[in-house]
Amino acid sequence: MSEPRALGRPADPALDDALIAAAIAELIELGYAGLTTAGVARRAGSSTAAIYRRWRSKQELVADTAARLVDDALAPVDTGTLAGDLAELLAHKHAAMAGGVGTALLTLIGASSHDEELAAVLRAEVFGRTRARVEQVLAQAAARGERVAGVDATAFAMLLTMAGLSPLIVGDGIPDAAYVRLLTAAVHHAGE
Amino acid sequence: MSEPRALGRPADPALDDALIAAAIAELIELGYAGLTTAGVARRAGSSTAAIYRRWRSKQELVADTAARLVDDALAPVDTGTLAGDLAELLAHKHAAMAGGVGTALLTLIGASSHDEELAAVLRAEVFGRTRARVEQVLAQAAARGERVAGVDATAFAMLLTMAGLSPLIVGDGIPDAAYVRLLTAAVHHAGE
Repeated sequence: MSEPRALGRPADPALDDALIAAAIAELIELGYAGLTTAGVARRAGSSTAAIYRRWRSKQELVADTAARLVDDALAPVDTGTLAGDLAELLAHKHAAMAGGVGTALLTLIGASSHDEELAAVLRAEVFGRTRARVEQVLAQAAARGERVAGVDATAFAMLLTMAGLSPLIVGDGIPDAAYVRLLTAAVHHAGE
Repeated sequence: MSEPRALGRPADPALDDALIAAAIAELIELGYAGLTTAGVARRAGSSTAAIYRRWRSKQELVADTAARLVDDALAPVDTGTLAGDLAELLAHKHAAMAGGVGTALLTLIGASSHDEELAAVLRAEVFGRTRARVEQVLAQAAARGERVAGVDATAFAMLLTMAGLSPLIVGDGIPDAAYVRLLTAAVHHAGE
């Protein structure tokens, strides 16, 4: 995850972690609209002052929270093939999205449609991280000699993100293998 | 769109249309959480009784409303190539999502994560329609002799849906051409 924005606070990683954990729990329980800095402080046994020493706004707190969730879903992969890497990325993502975490992220995406500040931080903290991981996977594929020419990494990251969220949107009806086949073919042949 | 669920109401397509139009306006202005059947009735110059003669719940009204929006985005296409069809589907989608409509749909997706009834109707009315259009486009491609073997139409519909929504989620930074290249390659080579 990114470091909380330093605003002259004393360093206290344990309290940072407690506040982020409380924010995750509040997001899962209440969604973005229901989350308040007061509620997060109360759950962490801390104070809103402690929150505002670390983050300038609810949106910034939530952005760091979302970044933490996404980092769990984006552990590095290197299986030896592009198809293997994509399958493992999707498996990590599903594991990280269990227990209400995916639902919490989905409410953030929905809320961002009426909240430009939230949209901007989500774009940077969540989507930006996914894109960086995708670029790494594509670079690994290229280094192995797999064809990756002509692939727009940003567009591909968007497709992969949504494949990862699809169980939340359309249920468990679509097997990962179907996505892996489509996405691997897309990468190998987009340059033709 | 699907017909409003008949519950013994007198047929009155003009009032059906006025209620749907009012629901669209309320969704754009207030999002799903803010929409009420009383507000929709007021805006349409009608009554909540008129709404409940047509739809059993807010979720059903919203489902028919979403279906109307999606039908506008899913006009039939037949350009002579798969790539052309996909480009036109994306262009239709962007046009239909302008003016706050896409934002309204995005709030529905977000809200569906905490509302199982809404999730079920969205799945059927919105995602089901997209899948049907995708199947038609794939059938056209097959009839022309383009390779479509091995494509999971449901997974592909999900990827296409999200390509269409991406300007709302990550801004206008990803050109449709990048998606068309990826998605066309995916279809043509998924069976390899």
